Amino acid sequence: MDAMGKSGAIRGSAVIGQSGGPTAVINQSLVGVIEGLRDNPAVESILGARHAVMGMKNDDFLELQGLGQDLLESVALTPAAALGSSRDKPDQAYCKQIFEVFARKNVRYFFYIGGNDSSDTCRIVNDLAAQSGYELRCFHVPKTIDNDLQHNDHTPGYPSAAKFVAQAFMGDDLDNRSLAGIKVNVIMGRNAGFLTAASVMSRQHLNDGPHLIYVPEVPFTQEGFLSDVDRVYKKLGRCLIAVSEGIHAEDGTPMATKFAKEIEHDAHGNLQLSGSGALGDALGDVIKKNLGVKRVRSDTFGYLQRSFCGCYSEVDAVEARLAGRKAAELALSGAQDGSISIVRESDDPYKASFKRIELTDVAGKTRVMEPGFLAGTCDIDDSFRRYLSPLIGTLPPKGLLPGV
Amino acid sequence: MDAMGKSGAIRGSAVIGQSGGPTAVINQSLVGVIEGLRDNPAVESILGARHAVMGMKNDDFLELQGLGQDLLESVALTPAAALGSSRDKPDQAYCKQIFEVFARKNVRYFFYIGGNDSSDTCRIVNDLAAQSGYELRCFHVPKTIDNDLQHNDHTPGYPSAAKFVAQAFMGDDLDNRSLAGIKVNVIMGRNAGFLTAASVMSRQHLNDGPHLIYVPEVPFTQEGFLSDVDRVYKKLGRCLIAVSEGIHAEDGTPMATKFAKEIEHDAHGNLQLSGSGALGDALGDVIKKNLGVKRVRSDTFGYLQRSFCGCYSEVDAVEARLAGRKAAELALSGAQDGSISIVRESDDPYKASFKRIELTDVAGKTRVMEPGFLAGTCDIDDSFRRYLSPLIGTLPPKGLLPGV
Repeated sequence: MDAMGKSGAIRGSAVIGQSGGPTAVINQSLVGVIEGLRDNPAVESILGARHAVMGMKNDDFLELQGLGQDLLESVALTPAAALGSSRDKPDQAYCKQIFEVFARKNVRYFFYIGGNDSSDTCRIVNDLAAQSGYELRCFHVPKTIDNDLQHNDHTPGYPSAAKFVAQAFMGDDLDNRSLAGIKVNVIMGRNAGFLTAASVMSRQHLNDGPHLIYVPEVPFTQEGFLSDVDRVYKKLGRCLIAVSEGIHAEDGTPMATKFAKEIEHDAHGNLQLSGSGALGDALGDVIKKNLGVKRVRSDTFGYLQRSFCGCYSEVDAVEARLAGRKAAELALSGAQDGSISIVRESDDPYKASFKRIELTDVAGKTRVMEPGFLAGTCDIDDSFRRYLSPLIGTLPPKGLLPGV
Repeated sequence: MDAMGKSGAIRGSAVIGQSGGPTAVINQSLVGVIEGLRDNPAVESILGARHAVMGMKNDDFLELQGLGQDLLESVALTPAAALGSSRDKPDQAYCKQIFEVFARKNVRYFFYIGGNDSSDTCRIVNDLAAQSGYELRCFHVPKTIDNDLQHNDHTPGYPSAAKFVAQAFMGDDLDNRSLAGIKVNVIMGRNAGFLTAASVMSRQHLNDGPHLIYVPEVPFTQEGFLSDVDRVYKKLGRCLIAVSEGIHAEDGTPMATKFAKEIEHDAHGNLQLSGSGALGDALGDVIKKNLGVKRVRSDTFGYLQRSFCGCYSEVDAVEARLAGRKAAELALSGAQDGSISIVRESDDPYKASFKRIELTDVAGKTRVMEPGFLAGTCDIDDSFRRYLSPLIGTLPPKGLLPGV
């Protein structure tokens, strides 16, 4: 056993799971955990749980020790959860089955890469282990394109998705300049508007879109929306709009549900927010019917924003890897549990550090956009650009002809 | 006047327009035409028509001669039509106004960058010029993400859009592996399935998706579709589906319209094919209702596939530029009219040449996928992969863990 092993590692196997919606860099974190564990002789085996808690319950694992670095690097660069993911929430009985498997395999390290729901799962497993006197070191490695974990400057996965949204809006703004009209783009984000706000990075020239940005942090009204769109369209002859899928009325009712009632013949039965174009189409219809504009289009970015191959932020890739390594290091050095938080040290040059926080700091909690990032009811403050810019890096320039 | 001028150029101004749906490389062709014209002393000025025929009719031009190469390179790399586009189809009266402007400015060269509708506009202008004895050299520079121009191996704009679709499907296939379910992705293409077929490039490993591909060249039946989806889902526990927006029944009725009738409460009034999620949502509902599968999602790639910033094919960028240059060279060397066709000389190494074809070879005509590219009713032949592969270049590898 090496020095680190002596100082705090316990002998046993490690289990790694990836949970919730995939991201472009979630496999960087997986590889980070593996790298952090693999050279420590206290670690008997590194087991990848297939489809997260499902694999733990059903004894369905991949052996991850001894994989070549070339393969790991290729997996790290590949979006979506390489182990498979799950949205299962384990209850007491579910956890009992997991612990039976863990005990049989002498699992003493548990790493769960995921968002706030996943950190809550991690907390539940941790509590149950403590209650039953089973020594298990439980670590949550943050991941979510929603950027909605508390006590984090930002969350791995978010910068890459934000970059996708920015590049998509850059292109779509140019498209909307070419063939003028009103365009509504619906972006993921149930409670937090961070990803939708990333569309603001598309603005490089005067009158660049998006011209209106609606996030869940600000209550949405149809009257306000129509008046905003009308104002922009009358001024510019076009209007590009960014909308979070989670926008809701003052009383908290999601607009997706509200529109389904109001425009019943236009809307779909199952109003799951993602994987459907219903909200975007409903907003487009509302504009057409009320403003009488002919060319109104809507796009819902859907799963592309979290999984598109070949578009990721370099900073995000590096940080996701380091977050995984940090969790492994902490667990091996004697820490019992925790989550990894990214702390911004400086903006220019951008520098961040990683620290341990309590599982209860993030578990089941939701961060939303700070009020200072919002500007009125339909725009984003410049401070948000300064916040996001170093995370996504340089964007391609929009080359416009003089006089356009 | 230089040698080229002496041999065939006439003294006058040149007008360039960009028409129809934008692409990632349409500005490469614009810059190609400018580069081909700018050093010839016969060319008195190079005028960019704002919003295509609209700018020509309304005397709304940008002066393009004398722009710096840095600016031109930046514009060339920027997606969407830098001059602005239009879907206007000029009639006799419209053309009369255009000719008045042309005569006033002594316009003797007319370059129109666009698809089959645009080549038809070019042909109309050409015919009218000939009829009225006005000497005007009319050239069509091909552009369309649909790849549906006849007498072309492929069309500038298509390889870049195909690359976007391939990378999107790669990521979405990994996403679907992570969180299993049935996923329907709707791709642009009213009559030709080339862009939808590009999804096949996502297949790198056994059982990679898309597992089913539906193009407009093959009549679509709901029964066949449900039976295909059921078969794949039962075998793999998941199913990724690529569908052209233009799929239609045996009698030619677009499925978008058909579904709107059959599932009236689920469908939207205005069934324009793009800029709406209606078809994808309808297909998802049909699966849910008939197969009883819970996790069914749909995404409509929308305008991202033609305008996403930062995703283009290198071959496409080079060829789009060369197509523009070729048109300028032909016009200056004495050719009266024509369109530019890409001829594939060899596959490995990939090599292409550019030749003049008649405007009537492409004008208003639609190429669809050759029967040899189709495999049964729901797949694409391997010969299509060999056709497309050199056009989009190397894709990022999907790194899978062994045993997944």
